[in-house]
Amino acid sequence: MNLTRYMEERRRLVDRTLKTVLPSQEGKPPRVLDKAMRYSLFSGGKRIRPILALASAEALGAPHEPVLPFACGLEMIHAYSLVHDDLPAMDDDDLRRGKPTNHVMFGEGMAILAGDGLLTEAFRIMAEGALANTRKADVGLRALREVATAAGAIGMVGGQVLDIAAEKKKPTRAGVEAIHTRKTGAMIRASVRVGALVGGATPRQYERLDQYGTAIGLAFQVTDDILDIEGGTEKTGKREGRDAELQKATYPAAIGMDKTKQLARKLRQEALSALKPFGADAEALRQICHLIVDRAVPPETG
Amino acid sequence: MNLTRYMEERRRLVDRTLKTVLPSQEGKPPRVLDKAMRYSLFSGGKRIRPILALASAEALGAPHEPVLPFACGLEMIHAYSLVHDDLPAMDDDDLRRGKPTNHVMFGEGMAILAGDGLLTEAFRIMAEGALANTRKADVGLRALREVATAAGAIGMVGGQVLDIAAEKKKPTRAGVEAIHTRKTGAMIRASVRVGALVGGATPRQYERLDQYGTAIGLAFQVTDDILDIEGGTEKTGKREGRDAELQKATYPAAIGMDKTKQLARKLRQEALSALKPFGADAEALRQICHLIVDRAVPPETG
Repeated sequence: MNLTRYMEERRRLVDRTLKTVLPSQEGKPPRVLDKAMRYSLFSGGKRIRPILALASAEALGAPHEPVLPFACGLEMIHAYSLVHDDLPAMDDDDLRRGKPTNHVMFGEGMAILAGDGLLTEAFRIMAEGALANTRKADVGLRALREVATAAGAIGMVGGQVLDIAAEKKKPTRAGVEAIHTRKTGAMIRASVRVGALVGGATPRQYERLDQYGTAIGLAFQVTDDILDIEGGTEKTGKREGRDAELQKATYPAAIGMDKTKQLARKLRQEALSALKPFGADAEALRQICHLIVDRAVPPETG
Repeated sequence: MNLTRYMEERRRLVDRTLKTVLPSQEGKPPRVLDKAMRYSLFSGGKRIRPILALASAEALGAPHEPVLPFACGLEMIHAYSLVHDDLPAMDDDDLRRGKPTNHVMFGEGMAILAGDGLLTEAFRIMAEGALANTRKADVGLRALREVATAAGAIGMVGGQVLDIAAEKKKPTRAGVEAIHTRKTGAMIRASVRVGALVGGATPRQYERLDQYGTAIGLAFQVTDDILDIEGGTEKTGKREGRDAELQKATYPAAIGMDKTKQLARKLRQEALSALKPFGADAEALRQICHLIVDRAVPPETG
């Protein structure tokens, strides 16, 4: 399979769906709010989370359609989290993917509200999606609950709190893991879970896919930590060494670069092993794992 | 019926439930986040929204239990909206119900995250509640969707955007109505709708209850506008004339005090008429309407 083409096709499908599910002009969202929400939602994101949800369903031979509203919800929640993280009271970033951040464009108050709007609309869209799948309302509810748990106080929001609290303190391995599993890992894992749930996974299939999601959820952030030091701006979209500058809790700072790379390799191995029973149907999930991790730790050859 | 005792009992029921549904310490929300969320959630709110949801179910002779998770969600979303509205980038308020606002206590970044946490957890709790009601997953989903729509870009968040945009401009009647129906009205109406949906209303009953909710939703804010000018701090919990100071869009500023009071009386009349078919079962809803409106426009005697 051609992963570049695969990702591009899925990204387009997600973007098309996002455009149809956002509040329409008949519902009369204020124009500036609509603009601010779309500014951050359509700013060149790679759509990793929604694509993972779709690819998980594919691994089960299940159709995209019922997964799409959740794929949209996942991406909107990711977008809101970036808007709020960039605020002056948080990481105070002016640039995101090479463009002015939401609050630089629209002002702080509007950026807070655009984030609130994206988060709230995400749940509306997931509820609509679950309702459209009339005979499986409970499956949709379970998927929605997964996303809410992953995004909430014991998930992403909690991770961001720990991240801020950890700044300028000497990072420990346990501390960094607590942040990374919550802040990034939880939503990536939820993306895979949602695809598995809505795709109708058996308990055994669900467990396997969840192992994959848990491993790449952590691997995603471990890789990011490595690339922040070694990657350069073109790979990460942010200034090299930005985490170090903010004295963020990262794996290299906690356990050194060698052990961090070892961990990334181990997580890649775990993710790939979990996919074995799915055979060729899991090829997309397999390649996405490589896409995430190989940039930081190239696979051994020979 | 004794409304004071009624409200007090329902308030306690909601508070007890809120304490059990918030993330438990085993789930490990960061301690400071948990503290910041609870600070604003348990700060002496009157719990009007959850009580309206419960009272709507009562008007149908339906039990509280399945409504409670939605009652909690409504209050948590209300609490988050106050935390974000008070931020320096928004209304910049230092006091709320006579206490320091969330960002004064915990800092701006944490207040943003506490709001995000309350909003996200609200949806998790509503999803849990809907799942517990196994045979009616679709009813729970419809209720959750109502709340999301009321809280989102064409509801409360949209209203707050219009409110900020309207500051320091000459208010028009249409402009003020657009703000009030979205910013406050939508969530009050949703509270009544949620009680009606989960309480199993027939389409005709739903329509009646919705008329009631729409009328008191707007009446709530019209009354607030009147009291901001005539009420004094002890009735409103905020400094007299605060809206005028911020040059907020209010009904008295748009159409004058006499017409504003006329509107409040008309909305009270509409709300009470809508309840007629429910007889004595709707006594709580009836008295809540009086509680909201009569402070600003005492009922005609004789």
